[in-house]
Amino acid sequence: MKYQHNFNPTISDEDIFSEIVKEKEYIGYYNLVFQDTLEYKEYAKSVKQKNIVVIGIGGSTLGTYAIYKFLKYSKNLTKKLYFLETTDPIDIKSKLENIDLNDTLFIVISKSGTTIETISIFKYINSLITCDRDNTLVITENDSKLNEYAKANKIKSFEIPKNVGGRFSVFSAVGLVPLAIVGIDIDEILHGAKKRHDSFFTQGKTYARIVKKARFFIEYKNSFNINVVFSYSSRLEGFNKWYIQLWGESLGKVDINSSRQGLTPIGIIGPIDQHSFLQLIVEGRRDKTVTVIKVDDFYNHLKIPNIELTGLSELNYVDDIEFSLLINKQADATIESINNLKDIPCDVITIDSVSERSIAGLMYEYELLTSVCAKFMYINAYDQPGVEAGKIILKQKLQTKS
Amino acid sequence: MKYQHNFNPTISDEDIFSEIVKEKEYIGYYNLVFQDTLEYKEYAKSVKQKNIVVIGIGGSTLGTYAIYKFLKYSKNLTKKLYFLETTDPIDIKSKLENIDLNDTLFIVISKSGTTIETISIFKYINSLITCDRDNTLVITENDSKLNEYAKANKIKSFEIPKNVGGRFSVFSAVGLVPLAIVGIDIDEILHGAKKRHDSFFTQGKTYARIVKKARFFIEYKNSFNINVVFSYSSRLEGFNKWYIQLWGESLGKVDINSSRQGLTPIGIIGPIDQHSFLQLIVEGRRDKTVTVIKVDDFYNHLKIPNIELTGLSELNYVDDIEFSLLINKQADATIESINNLKDIPCDVITIDSVSERSIAGLMYEYELLTSVCAKFMYINAYDQPGVEAGKIILKQKLQTKS
Repeated sequence: MKYQHNFNPTISDEDIFSEIVKEKEYIGYYNLVFQDTLEYKEYAKSVKQKNIVVIGIGGSTLGTYAIYKFLKYSKNLTKKLYFLETTDPIDIKSKLENIDLNDTLFIVISKSGTTIETISIFKYINSLITCDRDNTLVITENDSKLNEYAKANKIKSFEIPKNVGGRFSVFSAVGLVPLAIVGIDIDEILHGAKKRHDSFFTQGKTYARIVKKARFFIEYKNSFNINVVFSYSSRLEGFNKWYIQLWGESLGKVDINSSRQGLTPIGIIGPIDQHSFLQLIVEGRRDKTVTVIKVDDFYNHLKIPNIELTGLSELNYVDDIEFSLLINKQADATIESINNLKDIPCDVITIDSVSERSIAGLMYEYELLTSVCAKFMYINAYDQPGVEAGKIILKQKLQTKS
Repeated sequence: MKYQHNFNPTISDEDIFSEIVKEKEYIGYYNLVFQDTLEYKEYAKSVKQKNIVVIGIGGSTLGTYAIYKFLKYSKNLTKKLYFLETTDPIDIKSKLENIDLNDTLFIVISKSGTTIETISIFKYINSLITCDRDNTLVITENDSKLNEYAKANKIKSFEIPKNVGGRFSVFSAVGLVPLAIVGIDIDEILHGAKKRHDSFFTQGKTYARIVKKARFFIEYKNSFNINVVFSYSSRLEGFNKWYIQLWGESLGKVDINSSRQGLTPIGIIGPIDQHSFLQLIVEGRRDKTVTVIKVDDFYNHLKIPNIELTGLSELNYVDDIEFSLLINKQADATIESINNLKDIPCDVITIDSVSERSIAGLMYEYELLTSVCAKFMYINAYDQPGVEAGKIILKQKLQTKS
């Protein structure tokens, strides 16, 4: 008997591991944890400006914003970081109004070097102030048009390696250089990421956790096509946005059998979205998994005071409780009420503290999870062919003014 | 022959209409367009403080924020509006740091009057500054504990009618009072909403559009369980958040046959999320409808200058184009690329201009759409029983310190 097939059955955990190990030889993000950061730190030290404006979009800004937003309130940062991401004129104008451009370093970030939003905004900045080697930095691929511009104008540039995709680039110069400049410890960042790297590639706890989770997501993808990340801290708002890009753009693909795949990411913030999205999770269709992210130590002891408000004494049980305890109890209550239903898959990630290591570890873990899910799904996590058609149509519209 | 059944087949458009007309007699939001705003405006005029801090969460803030965010950059508003929504201590602390509390009016908004987040934050404010009739306003139901507090302290209060749900309350005192205080024309707001009201209840264009759209959503709810609102302006970020609550909390319900219903709302912003979520829409599973919202006139003529940047001349086709044209062309290119695929349901809403009327019309239309969808789904759009369990668990945890 002869038998021929082109089915792609479920892969074993071991095969997933060896596929990822193989992929690590040509997909660049895995090994960013081994980078030498000396040049980044020396450059950072040389920056005199107080305002740092990153001009970029998508993968060029979201990871940096996620880390900055998470850490900025507990660090004594001497410089301020801003992001110009969109072509919305109101957004550009209102952001620039509050920044002294004469005391600003502009960091133009584009992997391809020809991102239309980024270059358009940078052109506009050029009409407001002279951009030169003293106030401009470029981060791009080595052979890009943007790097050609940098060289022609003797502007310093850092490289985005060809094999590091935009949404996987937070631990490259894209994220590390702006973060180092504002005073975040980028060695600690890489340390946090490397711990997950090591634990994964020695098939330790991180590996076991990720493979199990990814397998569940894929095996139940037709029942649960939506993955909700429910972060119980406003500091994680940037992380949520970064996760949405990472997950959506990496996993929304056509697989090797020409079948459309995709898990839809949703990022919500607790307790705010208990008053907005939780009802849908609890009573709506069973099409969602929920990952709750908690922060163990907020480094903040703001307390609800023991004050009697006439009429409102039934709420006195919150008196003398720290807000950080309240928000964590709110998370626990949400988790318990979801788990009581028994038919909503729910996992909980608790971050120890507000530190470089913890946020970097979380982000590296999500990158690994994305890569592993893509392997299970027989798709390429690292391209984004679906957005090219729109770019071509836009160019035609603008060139022909149609 | 006798035949008995308890099926609920698809309702006719006419039956939907008469159901909504019946509902209008006891569901309050529909008739908010007929309110007399004199008292709101007179109170607004009397406010001397420069900073207005709304303490509230969910339906008590999202609608007000949506309108404020949409309008604030094109109005010369003399007062600033802030929102304290979350129990995250970092959020509370960082927001209050930038506000002169001695020049602040605190507006405490809670429909039930005992929202734990709102009262906890208000207690904290009480430890920072004396809250009394000179700097505090309450908006709540007439017989709530919060109103009892207001009366006991001779603090002015406005009423949220019992039959107006939180997420449908933007056109009540909840939204209109804070907006009037900062200088937004609330008669124009109601005018914009009333236009949609009239067109719907005379079975005009609004009615035809909404019923058709709702019917499609419900008939295809098992294929397309996710509805994406893709707003091409950062000004609509607040609208997106408001829509997510309205849609998620109203439609995520158990229907009269005990079957779980729910359409999952996603709000994204263009062009930013072209670099994050569009790939998933275009190549991922066909489980999403897409509604693109465009703003016709941005009232802003910021232009990409005609500047030659060495190396980047291939992008010169953007020179001399206004950013508002660029962003609208980006929207058009996205719409065209989605429509070319022919298997993603996509509709486009174009708002004429940045005005009170236009944002209010859009919001009232979405309220009507939500009510009509709920009728098709045989669910109650106006309750949220799914979040009660978590509240009880939280109270237990806090009372027993478990």
